[in-house]
Amino acid sequence: MARLVMKFGGTSVADPARIRASARKVAREVEAGHDVIVIVSAMAGRTNELVGFVNEIAPFYDAREYDAVVSSGENVTAGLMALMLQQMEVPARSWQGWQVPLRTNSAHGAARIMDIERDAIEAKFAEGMRVAVVAGFQGLSPEGRITTLGRGGSDTTAVAFAAAFGALRCDIYTDVDGVYTTDPRICARARRLDRIAFEEMLELASLGAKVLQTRSVELAMRYNVPVRVLTSFEETDDGSGTLVCGEEEIMESRVVSGVAYSRDEAKLTLSSVADRPGIAAAIFEPLAEAGVNVDMIVQNISEEGRTDMTFSCPIDQVPHAERALNAVREAGNLNFAELSANTEVAKVSVVGIGMRSHAGVAARMFRALYDEGINIKVITTSEIKISVLIERKYMELAVQALHDAFELEKAG
Amino acid sequence: MARLVMKFGGTSVADPARIRASARKVAREVEAGHDVIVIVSAMAGRTNELVGFVNEIAPFYDAREYDAVVSSGENVTAGLMALMLQQMEVPARSWQGWQVPLRTNSAHGAARIMDIERDAIEAKFAEGMRVAVVAGFQGLSPEGRITTLGRGGSDTTAVAFAAAFGALRCDIYTDVDGVYTTDPRICARARRLDRIAFEEMLELASLGAKVLQTRSVELAMRYNVPVRVLTSFEETDDGSGTLVCGEEEIMESRVVSGVAYSRDEAKLTLSSVADRPGIAAAIFEPLAEAGVNVDMIVQNISEEGRTDMTFSCPIDQVPHAERALNAVREAGNLNFAELSANTEVAKVSVVGIGMRSHAGVAARMFRALYDEGINIKVITTSEIKISVLIERKYMELAVQALHDAFELEKAG
Repeated sequence: MARLVMKFGGTSVADPARIRASARKVAREVEAGHDVIVIVSAMAGRTNELVGFVNEIAPFYDAREYDAVVSSGENVTAGLMALMLQQMEVPARSWQGWQVPLRTNSAHGAARIMDIERDAIEAKFAEGMRVAVVAGFQGLSPEGRITTLGRGGSDTTAVAFAAAFGALRCDIYTDVDGVYTTDPRICARARRLDRIAFEEMLELASLGAKVLQTRSVELAMRYNVPVRVLTSFEETDDGSGTLVCGEEEIMESRVVSGVAYSRDEAKLTLSSVADRPGIAAAIFEPLAEAGVNVDMIVQNISEEGRTDMTFSCPIDQVPHAERALNAVREAGNLNFAELSANTEVAKVSVVGIGMRSHAGVAARMFRALYDEGINIKVITTSEIKISVLIERKYMELAVQALHDAFELEKAG
Repeated sequence: MARLVMKFGGTSVADPARIRASARKVAREVEAGHDVIVIVSAMAGRTNELVGFVNEIAPFYDAREYDAVVSSGENVTAGLMALMLQQMEVPARSWQGWQVPLRTNSAHGAARIMDIERDAIEAKFAEGMRVAVVAGFQGLSPEGRITTLGRGGSDTTAVAFAAAFGALRCDIYTDVDGVYTTDPRICARARRLDRIAFEEMLELASLGAKVLQTRSVELAMRYNVPVRVLTSFEETDDGSGTLVCGEEEIMESRVVSGVAYSRDEAKLTLSSVADRPGIAAAIFEPLAEAGVNVDMIVQNISEEGRTDMTFSCPIDQVPHAERALNAVREAGNLNFAELSANTEVAKVSVVGIGMRSHAGVAARMFRALYDEGINIKVITTSEIKISVLIERKYMELAVQALHDAFELEKAG
């Protein structure tokens, strides 16, 4: 029988009524002939409440105990979902992470999945069970303790199960109805995409389109698991939502699929740095050690053996970056004239696998921004993405202008 | 190092502040040189909330899923207690039931403890851990699923750990400060007992003094584990509370230790039953099958081959009892003139191991009730208990009169 994985986020299992609505969707897939693995998050708000308890008790906590505490919300919804399905006469039972087991490494709080043992669940499917409900977000360490996969980890659990059980597809039910060309709150003409390639989704997710956990998309791409993002808040099931899939599944790729943005960026510039071999390492190794997530890096044209080095990072990491770089200078390992920080910038990106085979995307992007009088401070490019750093006050305008320039409101 | 078990009920771990207060008591025992096993309940109200979810979803639920859901509250408090102890620099870690494991049979919702594996916890004690925090109320079935021990099961978990690890004592921290000679809400002269024998506690617990789960007292008696009941709501730790122990530990037993009562009783009488061999079985087997908990039974003097049979049961089971007995009569297996139910009765009992060696207790009890004009409807006696059924409106008066008659306000 064909297998399907269905994942329900916190708002989709927020209370018994929401669990009932979600269970109906599962029952419909069972009626359609699928064996289903359901992955559930905790009830909306519950994990935050548990994290709050931990932080109130121990600001610097033992991550093993943190995991034991915060994983409990998923156990509740897994059991309740199994009960609701049984109530609908669908043969179902729940599994907690340690029962499957879903084995992870020992990186508590951000564990990596090592293996999913299929035997116990397969045996129950063979006996006639139609739905295995699995608590998301959690696993079992080699030491026999409970681990968690990091926030949003239930998406990753879902994709991992889809890969392990050879599922047709992994459906992620959430509180949005798909992936959009850009944020509809910023651009009213934003359009829901029917399909998007894994690579595009990865760029969009890491750029701030917080629909799917980035790791889950990486995993889906590696195992070629089609992932459908759709809402659990509609009764109809018309195959809507957005399918995240391999690019070979997308007949005619658009040049640009979406416009992403990130508001909380900062730009730091080290001026008049001695331009010698190893200077980049001298700057970025201390930043990495200080936990600063450097994103864009630009080295300006060198004059007379001196250069300006510019990079961006999340705005809340600026103090850490400044402290780290000043410390390196005081230790005599780095020489620069000035360290200036601009915390009034934002990043806007256009993403699309069609860029690989289409020239002129960058030129069209820069023209659109120029026409609106928006100055570009930093540019970086990858194979399927072009990002610019601009003044934050122009961010919404830039997103709208780029959405128009690439005609994203039109179906592909 | 001497071992101690400390159990904290729901009000003692209701929030981070209460967990801190309870953890301080644990830290004090560690400082005093004890290795400690802490058993925790869920935060007050949490288990009821979870039971509410289950009942809302599935009135006739799969008990395996019920257990998976309702056991989760204890996992939260176990982790939080371990974190709080670590914060106080006490080496501690948490265990869930399946991690110990605490093995039970498969009677989900009311599982019996089969075995506690000591190896994992002993290994950690040997490495320098001072406190093992264990989630109460839960265990692992032979099928690898989570079981629960029934409401109040954390008391039983605590006593079982004390027995398995050879603990000096099992301290049960709760929201009352000990066991009283009777309910202080009914009799202002009620006095806290310093010590009470297991057998007495069993009679008091099953009669309505809801301080300890009855099973935990049975277990403590079988393994001779001293159990101390005390409050977690006082900062001082002066060895107060009540010690439940073997009667050999009680120097000079009182004749009567306490007066218990049960308000929700009903008296049923089958009049003019044919007095033949097997008639008792013909009545009480159908009642047992109907789930009626028959308590007191009295058969009146037979006249001319007919007899009246009277018994008591909880008031909410009267409809079940009536249905069962009428069905037996209709089936022709039982012949009686009338079935009458009196739902306006209550049971009052005096309990004391000293009764075994002292005559005249019954006479003194009946005299005290007679002096207050209280008519006795049914009497039953055991080795250490005398119970009477009386009109409910006299219940408080009877408790007070008996408390006075046996001078329970005076220290033993």
